[in-house]
Amino acid sequence: MAAALPVSALIEKHRPTLDKALESIRSRAYWSPHPEHPKAYGENGSLSLPEGKAAFDALLGNRLDLDQPGTDDWTGGEVSPYGPELSISYPHADPDVLLPAMRAGMRAWREAGAEARALVCLEILARISARSHEFAQAVMHTSGQAYMMAFQAGGPHAQDRGLEAVAYAYAEQVRTPGEAEWTKPQGKRDPLALHKTFTPVGRGVSLLIGCNTFPTWNSYPALFASLATGNPVLVKPHPRAVLPLALTVQVARAVLTEAGFDPNLVALTAERPGEGSAKTLALRPEVRIIDYTGSTEFGDWLEGNARQAQVYTEKAGVNTVVLDSTDDYQGMLANLAFSLSLYSGQMCTTPQNLLIPRDGIRTDAGEKSFDEVVADLSAAVGGLLGDDARANALLGALVNPGVRERLEAAPGLGEVALASREIGNPEFPDAVVRTPVVVKLDGAKPDAEAAYLSECFGPVSFAVAVDSTEGALELLRRTVREKGAMTVAAYSTSPEVTAAVEEVCLEECAQLSLNLTGGVYVNQTAAFSDFHGSGGNPAANAALCDAAFVANRFRVVEVRREA
Amino acid sequence: MAAALPVSALIEKHRPTLDKALESIRSRAYWSPHPEHPKAYGENGSLSLPEGKAAFDALLGNRLDLDQPGTDDWTGGEVSPYGPELSISYPHADPDVLLPAMRAGMRAWREAGAEARALVCLEILARISARSHEFAQAVMHTSGQAYMMAFQAGGPHAQDRGLEAVAYAYAEQVRTPGEAEWTKPQGKRDPLALHKTFTPVGRGVSLLIGCNTFPTWNSYPALFASLATGNPVLVKPHPRAVLPLALTVQVARAVLTEAGFDPNLVALTAERPGEGSAKTLALRPEVRIIDYTGSTEFGDWLEGNARQAQVYTEKAGVNTVVLDSTDDYQGMLANLAFSLSLYSGQMCTTPQNLLIPRDGIRTDAGEKSFDEVVADLSAAVGGLLGDDARANALLGALVNPGVRERLEAAPGLGEVALASREIGNPEFPDAVVRTPVVVKLDGAKPDAEAAYLSECFGPVSFAVAVDSTEGALELLRRTVREKGAMTVAAYSTSPEVTAAVEEVCLEECAQLSLNLTGGVYVNQTAAFSDFHGSGGNPAANAALCDAAFVANRFRVVEVRREA
Repeated sequence: MAAALPVSALIEKHRPTLDKALESIRSRAYWSPHPEHPKAYGENGSLSLPEGKAAFDALLGNRLDLDQPGTDDWTGGEVSPYGPELSISYPHADPDVLLPAMRAGMRAWREAGAEARALVCLEILARISARSHEFAQAVMHTSGQAYMMAFQAGGPHAQDRGLEAVAYAYAEQVRTPGEAEWTKPQGKRDPLALHKTFTPVGRGVSLLIGCNTFPTWNSYPALFASLATGNPVLVKPHPRAVLPLALTVQVARAVLTEAGFDPNLVALTAERPGEGSAKTLALRPEVRIIDYTGSTEFGDWLEGNARQAQVYTEKAGVNTVVLDSTDDYQGMLANLAFSLSLYSGQMCTTPQNLLIPRDGIRTDAGEKSFDEVVADLSAAVGGLLGDDARANALLGALVNPGVRERLEAAPGLGEVALASREIGNPEFPDAVVRTPVVVKLDGAKPDAEAAYLSECFGPVSFAVAVDSTEGALELLRRTVREKGAMTVAAYSTSPEVTAAVEEVCLEECAQLSLNLTGGVYVNQTAAFSDFHGSGGNPAANAALCDAAFVANRFRVVEVRREA
Repeated sequence: MAAALPVSALIEKHRPTLDKALESIRSRAYWSPHPEHPKAYGENGSLSLPEGKAAFDALLGNRLDLDQPGTDDWTGGEVSPYGPELSISYPHADPDVLLPAMRAGMRAWREAGAEARALVCLEILARISARSHEFAQAVMHTSGQAYMMAFQAGGPHAQDRGLEAVAYAYAEQVRTPGEAEWTKPQGKRDPLALHKTFTPVGRGVSLLIGCNTFPTWNSYPALFASLATGNPVLVKPHPRAVLPLALTVQVARAVLTEAGFDPNLVALTAERPGEGSAKTLALRPEVRIIDYTGSTEFGDWLEGNARQAQVYTEKAGVNTVVLDSTDDYQGMLANLAFSLSLYSGQMCTTPQNLLIPRDGIRTDAGEKSFDEVVADLSAAVGGLLGDDARANALLGALVNPGVRERLEAAPGLGEVALASREIGNPEFPDAVVRTPVVVKLDGAKPDAEAAYLSECFGPVSFAVAVDSTEGALELLRRTVREKGAMTVAAYSTSPEVTAAVEEVCLEECAQLSLNLTGGVYVNQTAAFSDFHGSGGNPAANAALCDAAFVANRFRVVEVRREA
């Protein structure tokens, strides 16, 4: 039976997009095929905002049946950080049945070749894109992101990251030709001649362990990198954020089927409350690749114990901002205030420690003392979030009680420069919405170290008084080396200081944003251009997305014979 | 002070070679810039055979001072497998002094950029190439390889593999541009515009743990991949095979100095007898990359314990030949006889298990029973090695007493089809030279499994009777999956059988040679075209050489600022 979606149709539809993605990862210039304006959707088969909302509402209270083999139970229980219970149940898989079933489709998937695999992935992404407003609801009501962010970060930006991974995976697989003729001269004798074939082969089942805060954005690179390199992908979402990935799996299975492949190449297993199934699945011999975003503790456990697998982890880190001087004081304050506020600081890229010389900094508005900088930044945050509607749109809701507990404990760590404020959400009265707290710490006091040298995930920042910019750089170096960092930011008008910060980041392997005062924020990265994490400090052992993220998800098998 | 070897001179001298290497890893066609004929040397500054011998002789009995910091002792004690004591002593390093000194040169090495690093590596290789006859003596008298093999595999072929690694490293580092302008439209507002820089940075000190049998060939890919990606390389040779790597380090340090870099970017530390320094060094926090060739036991230990480092290992494996049918019986026998004999089977790529249906195989010389095939192969080996001079030239010497012990124990494992024979070496009467033993085993007997399902490194092969070709494929699959394999070979005239063998190798990730009957042997691979190992079965976690072998030896640090 001919596939409903033959490769020829996929080539015509998606090859130009793949080519543009390949060009973009080489040039690192701006590009995205996924519009980020919510109003760009609603035509050409894509869902408008109300249609997305209706589609989401239709899911609530129902079983999401993915028609997978080995489903031995149904489980779920997501409660939106905005209050409502989702009451959706998902398949819980018996790995003894599901894992072999997932492997069954590997041969045909391998034989399809790198281009067909890439184009099937692009079709999956295109269908997800068309449902971006539905995914936005799902992301909002699992992560607590405000709608606009859930839409953009959970929709087009996540899709961009997925496409980027497909482009890297494709480029990597076609670096070695499918066939080669090898002829070695032998002087007067006949040359030695061999015909060789080279086939990219997946490693085996790829286990994707999703996170609570960015269920799609943090998962799509891994999902698509593994699938595009020939591996079946088993998705084990965070129990509080199943829906966005369940919908993803649903789309992937439909596309695989239409393209003539085994839908079991992508499957989902939800976990029962307290089951901790990631730990069991991670040690299965079929699982040869694992991607994980979450705590350092479990990330380290995976790296140490899942020895049969390639393990890619994004873990905790402590992000630092070095404040030395600026020629745009207001711009700096506004930029930082936004970064601290966005999604209540619940991003792995949100700055935590603001290192400020205790003698103050030079600015275009004159010298500013430590206390003035902290007060002005606090005022900027206060101003940004002064209007409740705007605050709700920026902050979203606290994702889980752990974040709230850390926020509430923060005032005990030092002098509160900016107190957290409770904000009411008129649409979702049960949402826990809080503005960020800023706590002053003295970097010279050893007892403050315990606070600023550990990740305090959520809307908590520390304004750390340091003796000098030199002292700030030493603390930056130590923080990145010992605790890791997804991002570093610095403000300075001095070329010497700027060069010194760059050198620390080059030596300690951290991604640096310098003097951001406009509409780009340290906690945001753009696919095809920015790397997310470096893979070279303790916060993550891989970067999104580079060749190292894809090159070891497959191997090349060579067959040679005499020509 | 200007460098004696400025980058401009290196570009002129080596850039065309780098470009040709880059082209070759894409086309996988035959290419080598390093002549493999011994007589090609002796002009244009390269050493002739007698000159190489004289240079080697001059080293004997002396201290090889590499002028390294932190040398706290001198150690050595290599005894040639051909008999003579080398009596050379080498630096033993205090890691507390040497490792920081090695890191000191990282910044300038990073700032030089990928091209300069690659070209410095090419100059190192060129100087090693010119001394190939000296290196051949060093390899011969540490590995026990016969001179011609020590010359070719230890010289030009090892240099090819080093150059291949440099090409991969260079290609990987320049995939991301050094700078990019990123401009994101914002509708009617001004676009967001960022200037970005991307810098490849090394991970840290790269520890290279050398092996006894191929001190240069198995080390050069790692050494050059790490150095070319910005990492200092600490070489810890096998205590029985120090000299080839000590000379390599000597050349590297000289070239680095002349090119204006810190010579401590490459250093050597020899170990005292029984010291086991690899274990200590592997856990040093400065060590961020480890390459190892050797036992599965220590390779597994490294993977499990050196958690601060990227660990690349080549370990034990069990290489299989499937015999189904052939249209060139004599060619097959001759080819296999050579593969079993070369370097006394002391190659990680030497076939161990010959799986032969107990009912025999079809050949162009008629049906051949199991016993006939084994007898004919034994006769082919006997004929190949019938002349003592030729036998010495092919076999070399047993590398260490462990190989001899396994050889001597082999007759106890089953029925001896071909007994090992002692060969005298007129030039080196103390050399232990032995022809291979072939032992018959019955694959259906469970007690035979212990023999054929473990690596018996050295001149020992098992002719395993299996029920059918299907049975052979099942055993092949199981062997690769459980024990790993660097190579698989098969002989069949049946397209169905050939396809089935290919499928097993694709699924279990093993490199396959089909129907080799001429002058190419299963245990040989050519740089720029063949992959050595797959990195996808237990014999090795990396292949030589592909992008995955280099892509994680460096990270890319991005610095972005408003344009």
